Amino acid sequence: MHDDIKIKEECGVFGIAENTSCDVASQVYFALYALQHRGQESCGIAVNDRGVITHYRDLGLVYEVFNPERLASLGSGKMAIGHVRYSTTGNVKRHNAQPLVVKHIKGPLALCHNGNITNAYELRRRFEMNGAIFHGTNDTEVIAYLITNARLESDSIEGAVEKAMYDLKGAYSLVVMSAQKLIAARDPIGFRPLCIGRTQSGGYVVASESCALDSIGAKFVRDVDPGEIVVIKDGEIKSIRTHCVNKKPHICVFEYVYIARPDSVIEGASVHEARLRAGEFLAKSHPVEADVVIGVPDSGLDAALGYSRASGIPYGVGFIKNRYVGRSFIQPTQVMRDNAVRIKLNVLKAVVDGKRVIMIDDSIVRGTTSARIVKLLRNAGATEVHVRVSSPPFTNPCYFGVDIDSKEKLIACRRTLDEICKDIGADSLEYLSLEDVRKIADTENCDFCDGCFTGDYPCEVPKQMSKSKFETKIQEQLEFN
Amino acid sequence: MHDDIKIKEECGVFGIAENTSCDVASQVYFALYALQHRGQESCGIAVNDRGVITHYRDLGLVYEVFNPERLASLGSGKMAIGHVRYSTTGNVKRHNAQPLVVKHIKGPLALCHNGNITNAYELRRRFEMNGAIFHGTNDTEVIAYLITNARLESDSIEGAVEKAMYDLKGAYSLVVMSAQKLIAARDPIGFRPLCIGRTQSGGYVVASESCALDSIGAKFVRDVDPGEIVVIKDGEIKSIRTHCVNKKPHICVFEYVYIARPDSVIEGASVHEARLRAGEFLAKSHPVEADVVIGVPDSGLDAALGYSRASGIPYGVGFIKNRYVGRSFIQPTQVMRDNAVRIKLNVLKAVVDGKRVIMIDDSIVRGTTSARIVKLLRNAGATEVHVRVSSPPFTNPCYFGVDIDSKEKLIACRRTLDEICKDIGADSLEYLSLEDVRKIADTENCDFCDGCFTGDYPCEVPKQMSKSKFETKIQEQLEFN
Amino acid sequence: MHDDIKIKEECGVFGIAENTSCDVASQVYFALYALQHRGQESCGIAVNDRGVITHYRDLGLVYEVFNPERLASLGSGKMAIGHVRYSTTGNVKRHNAQPLVVKHIKGPLALCHNGNITNAYELRRRFEMNGAIFHGTNDTEVIAYLITNARLESDSIEGAVEKAMYDLKGAYSLVVMSAQKLIAARDPIGFRPLCIGRTQSGGYVVASESCALDSIGAKFVRDVDPGEIVVIKDGEIKSIRTHCVNKKPHICVFEYVYIARPDSVIEGASVHEARLRAGEFLAKSHPVEADVVIGVPDSGLDAALGYSRASGIPYGVGFIKNRYVGRSFIQPTQVMRDNAVRIKLNVLKAVVDGKRVIMIDDSIVRGTTSARIVKLLRNAGATEVHVRVSSPPFTNPCYFGVDIDSKEKLIACRRTLDEICKDIGADSLEYLSLEDVRKIADTENCDFCDGCFTGDYPCEVPKQMSKSKFETKIQEQLEFN
Amino acid sequence: MHDDIKIKEECGVFGIAENTSCDVASQVYFALYALQHRGQESCGIAVNDRGVITHYRDLGLVYEVFNPERLASLGSGKMAIGHVRYSTTGNVKRHNAQPLVVKHIKGPLALCHNGNITNAYELRRRFEMNGAIFHGTNDTEVIAYLITNARLESDSIEGAVEKAMYDLKGAYSLVVMSAQKLIAARDPIGFRPLCIGRTQSGGYVVASESCALDSIGAKFVRDVDPGEIVVIKDGEIKSIRTHCVNKKPHICVFEYVYIARPDSVIEGASVHEARLRAGEFLAKSHPVEADVVIGVPDSGLDAALGYSRASGIPYGVGFIKNRYVGRSFIQPTQVMRDNAVRIKLNVLKAVVDGKRVIMIDDSIVRGTTSARIVKLLRNAGATEVHVRVSSPPFTNPCYFGVDIDSKEKLIACRRTLDEICKDIGADSLEYLSLEDVRKIADTENCDFCDGCFTGDYPCEVPKQMSKSKFETKIQEQLEFN
Repeated sequence: MHDDIKIKEECGVFGIAENTSCDVASQVYFALYALQHRGQESCGIAVNDRGVITHYRDLGLVYEVFNPERLASLGSGKMAIGHVRYSTTGNVKRHNAQPLVVKHIKGPLALCHNGNITNAYELRRRFEMNGAIFHGTNDTEVIAYLITNARLESDSIEGAVEKAMYDLKGAYSLVVMSAQKLIAARDPIGFRPLCIGRTQSGGYVVASESCALDSIGAKFVRDVDPGEIVVIKDGEIKSIRTHCVNKKPHICVFEYVYIARPDSVIEGASVHEARLRAGEFLAKSHPVEADVVIGVPDSGLDAALGYSRASGIPYGVGFIKNRYVGRSFIQPTQVMRDNAVRIKLNVLKAVVDGKRVIMIDDSIVRGTTSARIVKLLRNAGATEVHVRVSSPPFTNPCYFGVDIDSKEKLIACRRTLDEICKDIGADSLEYLSLEDVRKIADTENCDFCDGCFTGDYPCEVPKQMSKSKFETKIQEQLEFN
Repeated sequence: MHDDIKIKEECGVFGIAENTSCDVASQVYFALYALQHRGQESCGIAVNDRGVITHYRDLGLVYEVFNPERLASLGSGKMAIGHVRYSTTGNVKRHNAQPLVVKHIKGPLALCHNGNITNAYELRRRFEMNGAIFHGTNDTEVIAYLITNARLESDSIEGAVEKAMYDLKGAYSLVVMSAQKLIAARDPIGFRPLCIGRTQSGGYVVASESCALDSIGAKFVRDVDPGEIVVIKDGEIKSIRTHCVNKKPHICVFEYVYIARPDSVIEGASVHEARLRAGEFLAKSHPVEADVVIGVPDSGLDAALGYSRASGIPYGVGFIKNRYVGRSFIQPTQVMRDNAVRIKLNVLKAVVDGKRVIMIDDSIVRGTTSARIVKLLRNAGATEVHVRVSSPPFTNPCYFGVDIDSKEKLIACRRTLDEICKDIGADSLEYLSLEDVRKIADTENCDFCDGCFTGDYPCEVPKQMSKSKFETKIQEQLEFN
Repeated sequence: MHDDIKIKEECGVFGIAENTSCDVASQVYFALYALQHRGQESCGIAVNDRGVITHYRDLGLVYEVFNPERLASLGSGKMAIGHVRYSTTGNVKRHNAQPLVVKHIKGPLALCHNGNITNAYELRRRFEMNGAIFHGTNDTEVIAYLITNARLESDSIEGAVEKAMYDLKGAYSLVVMSAQKLIAARDPIGFRPLCIGRTQSGGYVVASESCALDSIGAKFVRDVDPGEIVVIKDGEIKSIRTHCVNKKPHICVFEYVYIARPDSVIEGASVHEARLRAGEFLAKSHPVEADVVIGVPDSGLDAALGYSRASGIPYGVGFIKNRYVGRSFIQPTQVMRDNAVRIKLNVLKAVVDGKRVIMIDDSIVRGTTSARIVKLLRNAGATEVHVRVSSPPFTNPCYFGVDIDSKEKLIACRRTLDEICKDIGADSLEYLSLEDVRKIADTENCDFCDGCFTGDYPCEVPKQMSKSKFETKIQEQLEFN
Repeated sequence: MHDDIKIKEECGVFGIAENTSCDVASQVYFALYALQHRGQESCGIAVNDRGVITHYRDLGLVYEVFNPERLASLGSGKMAIGHVRYSTTGNVKRHNAQPLVVKHIKGPLALCHNGNITNAYELRRRFEMNGAIFHGTNDTEVIAYLITNARLESDSIEGAVEKAMYDLKGAYSLVVMSAQKLIAARDPIGFRPLCIGRTQSGGYVVASESCALDSIGAKFVRDVDPGEIVVIKDGEIKSIRTHCVNKKPHICVFEYVYIARPDSVIEGASVHEARLRAGEFLAKSHPVEADVVIGVPDSGLDAALGYSRASGIPYGVGFIKNRYVGRSFIQPTQVMRDNAVRIKLNVLKAVVDGKRVIMIDDSIVRGTTSARIVKLLRNAGATEVHVRVSSPPFTNPCYFGVDIDSKEKLIACRRTLDEICKDIGADSLEYLSLEDVRKIADTENCDFCDGCFTGDYPCEVPKQMSKSKFETKIQEQLEFN
């Protein structure tokens, strides 16, 4: 239940390379629909028709930005890429929407990525010192410069990407489209997911999550390896593995807990099953006598089912989420402030009245929303409310693509478990343990990054803080010339 | 799963009468959000500020029609009413949106209703024979004429409503706002729900469903009785019971099966629990060996949980529904046609692969969508698919406010159970029995109308067919003068 | 120069009846473009396809309300009518836009008119006393009721119109479209213009002004006579002359001075030439030594040319009007207030610098705009500014379709000629005389209504005041039942 | 009358530097309104608030792109710049709209210009060879790179502009805004106008035309000299004259004939008077007996007045131009094709019927529109139509900012005078002579570029052709890497 709190997923990327010219724009459109949960701020599509790239991007959800005319205006082609970007009230600018489409010495280039380049500021300064100009503040423009500069000394665009990756630090699942090639690359740590599929007509697609493949009827082939560069041209796929230094990716564990869609399979593990297991682990480590287990929609539902299965306590539908509350929803004001949660989430009194309730949520950030939800349950007659959280407490920032609140806002940084329990008005409160969260994904294929829980990251972290501060810094570095 | 088939819920109504002037428009706005599932075609709000009624209505969802400026333009007042109207591709006209706001000899009048007046055509002719003009084709305009004509011989607006009800046949849950009064009335059969609540500040509200009360923090008081007229003025509520001939309403059983929101309580019975019970009954009457029970989102989920509980077969999350597929969604064309369902609904392969699956849906109309969904499950590896439907087969039209397909389109009118089973590709297919559907609502308070399943209706039915045909008739009756 | 003052033209009407079904909507669209100057508040088109009338109307200019999709949605047909409505900040409501489309006992009816029914309030009360309901506050709905009620006792729709006209008082140029007929009628006084034309394909059109005929290549046939009812059906035109009591219309003289487009010909007189003559008369009766004659765009230009011709003083282009200042123009605030006029109107310094200037405007209402314009001229170096007004002073209200300011706002009611001259900062000020204004239209075909200048009207005037007050009265007459 | 033919004015620029923070965005808004005639494709505003630049730009007219919210979102500041861009059906892309706002090593930079950089392609290649990336295809991005690169070796932004100008060839009236400075520069030839003014509060403004100064009440100070760089900071203005090699600008003579607004004064000469003189010259060199002289609105009106004055033949208003035909105007189709001109332009029959008419237009490009207009006059009864054109025939391309048709489309390149006269159906046709067009601007301050008439240009011209071809070239130069 993160609607009004400060966790933002990063982005979702998608690319397609068919063997004949067709309506690739629609394919990207449907794929972006499936990836919409990864970013609701802005989106864009770039279509490549024999080397000429036409694109459109804007603030808004996929269905808001693209109507039939808009989609048709992108024309046909063999290749296309698309992007959804995360929602934030901060630096939401149209010129930061992606894909970024630029022209350089070797022709046009379209790029988009999911992740966070930790040395973006240094790289940017380096280019600026050479006279480079930047139109926006997103990392993608830095990546574009790295590639176009590398291209001057490389024989091919993939060679340029390979070269550029020596300079890039941090997390990136990158999709690049040149006049003739579709290229996908994943950082050597493998923070963010990226997978390959084949369309029904034999083309290739790359996507942040496998659910995007399903949406267009494409078959999952495999995940892109950490550090791997995949090059698709003329129906052929090849792989550059120079940067494949880690055998296994250290994938962000929060992808399984919250970010990814349950029907996606990441590194061989079903996200849905990972959440079921999180619930099962919670049931085993933090049992409590109760009459019903309910989940906070949508991301707490799977874990609640898992808890129910492992504990034998019946699973119940505790809340109805209003499916029509969209971006344009007018926030309740003054008097109705307290009812804010109630409009989005209504308690099923029949399910909780007179019951001891176990409520599963995927995380607690500031605690205010949890407090409101617990209160709703009590008002509906719940005699006890035991909160179980399907992830460990957030205590550290993420440098690799998830925009968690600042430390001073994170309740787990300020308050003890007991205090939080009291703050949110619960009868008991327990988190999933670190050991358990590392086991939720049933896969041997990968390790995890769980730095947000532990403060231990799989690579060096930057000294400057969060992305938003970085952006501020860029705006403030004006030398008033 | 009725997205692309031809069952349309009717409408949702809401009215509020506060004791002091305040932002009643926002209250209606939030209430309509909660009632949005009852009608997605159009919506409207009328605000009464000391006898002056300002209104706005248009095609679209609540959040599309009302932005902050639009809402603010309605001003403040003590009273307001609102309406959501069902979605159809047929006679969708802005001038049919409600509330209807008219001026008559005694001042302004705003009206909206949920239901279907079966003698609307005759009434309309009667007025036309007197020189009356009609702007639209909806029943509400006929009701308005009845009331304004009755008003000429009545002392009060409620007297006029009482008088008008002698002429009205069919189903109606009606809300009327005059310069000084808020009036709610329900037809003597009681086909459609209508309830009364109190706001936190002591005002009164009336709503189609109790979930609308919850959304604004109002307390449920009681259902309006069949035939009852409730009059609210200056903080006082009174009741006119002249038409209260039936002790119990014959409420539409399909409200429990599909139409109403699970968190609503109608005639004392929880809709959610009714659906759980439907699933339990199915489990008892139509058991089958299987590994997992899944529901078709959203309305099949509760019944699936009920089936699981009663059968002991594990409940599973079989599908992920894309929450972002809205009205503006661009339909897939040509090539992608077969994938249409897939974009809205993705199977959780991990849940069904290699499993014998029981799939619960609330109804089968034409069968085409069911066939596609069964196919999705098989493609995902389900070894068996047993379909259980939480209502009896549709075999008859509804004259009282639900727009079911024509008989020739209803698969149950054309095909036997076995044939349907084969058509949709299931291993077995069973429906809830008539006896069982009549028991799903755990209440002594009401009887049911189940004419769509039985052909037996609690009152006389008109000879002309469906509402859409009625509208056609109006348009065709031109005498080419 | 009436941009920010309170004279509003009424409306423009148009109707077309072709012999075969075609894109009549586009023809109306282009005709409304030509009539746009008669009303910028709202517009609408109704198309008749074999008796089925489809319509759309909304607030906004023709090009804002109708895009290609909207126009296409109206379909094809043999007949159509359209309307533009005047701009006011007062009771601008979408439901007051026209054409009004209603259904009555004999089928559908679409109506629109230009004018003002002086006994609308009484008629409305009469219908309300019979139970009638009204959706809006415009006169057209009253006319519709009159016709539909008369229709009950008439053999034909034209018979009903004929009968209705016995009850209608005031000014109306009316267009009515029934399932099979297009009917145009003009009040017996003939306040507002209405003419007949033939299209290139042999169909008939009726329009407020002949410029609408030109815009679609139709040929002018003749004016509709005062009191005449013209009926067009199946390519035949017939005339009902029961109400033709006046030989000549008393047409509003302000149509020639300001309202009509210069390229229109009304009652045989060119509007452009009428304005030239107004200028010539001014030159003869109010000569002054000067170096240049300029007009205030757009309506003062022709009179300035006439003044120049008659006086021999060179005609000059004194102002450039910004052609891009549209409805959505953001009004300058605070600081820039004084510059308001300057943005819309820039002085050509080269033309007036060091010159004695005669400036012709068509009227002075409040005087504030005139004062600003005179100041602009002086700032640009004009040594003398002599203002000549091509109409007599406004001293009385108009009851017949022009919304002039209230008397207390009219500068000519409060101040002497000398005072006004001083108020606006002119060196001299003269108005066109009453005798002269009656001679500006070079035609024997008509008399004039010049009640706004004289207080003498060609028929009885109502006791209640302006239309806006009438509307207020309707809203206030609530009996709080 | 260039509505549907292929002459496009280039752009309009504006910049303001006030001494205190205020609503500079509104000032730019009103100034762009006054410059709208220089470009209707797109527009944009960038506001500088203490070094932080916020901007918005989009396709559309000023009033379409900027509503009050949009304008308010730009905030307050001391400095701002704005731009309007020309209308073309070709490469109309949102990302080509201006001002261009970029970030470089020394902070933010906003730029916009009017003109055409003839060596843009070579410069672009040079930067691309260094790894530069380009987002759009407009010249401004090349200028930005030149400045940011020069900035690395300059002490100041104005030094960088000075340095950059050594590389820039062609026509440019440039406005640059850095964190602290507003800079205006004009190419050493001085093709396009650029002037300086002072606001009422003592700030400075720069604008393409003086009419923009008038619109906000600013006083004209002087024109920017050819080659001059004007730097405004903290209320001080200074001038860098390194590039001031030409004493007089060679200003585009077509600015006087057609592009500029009549109320602008360029290089000391009134545009309105220049057009009057063009008409006078025509009257002297190409007299003809006639009854009336009329102009084609809007740009032919002044010359017609001049012709009338010099010839003694009465000036008449021959056409009424529909002021409401805007960008969104739906083009007439099929049947109505021939009437296309008629909707925009109606003949005043009263003025031309039975008359020998002299019709003045500012230019003839393809001849098709002229033919239609002549036909309109004949249909309205003109007995003779003598066409006089207030500029010499177009026979050569413009490399300096006006997008004239390709040679094969220019009628004067293909046909003799007599043939053209016949083509357009005139009784006689004459053009203004080269000698005369060079004298229309009554000023000693400047020479002219009249290359479009003569093929002689005041500087070297590029080998590649028009701008649109250049853009195509960029798109085609893909090396398909």
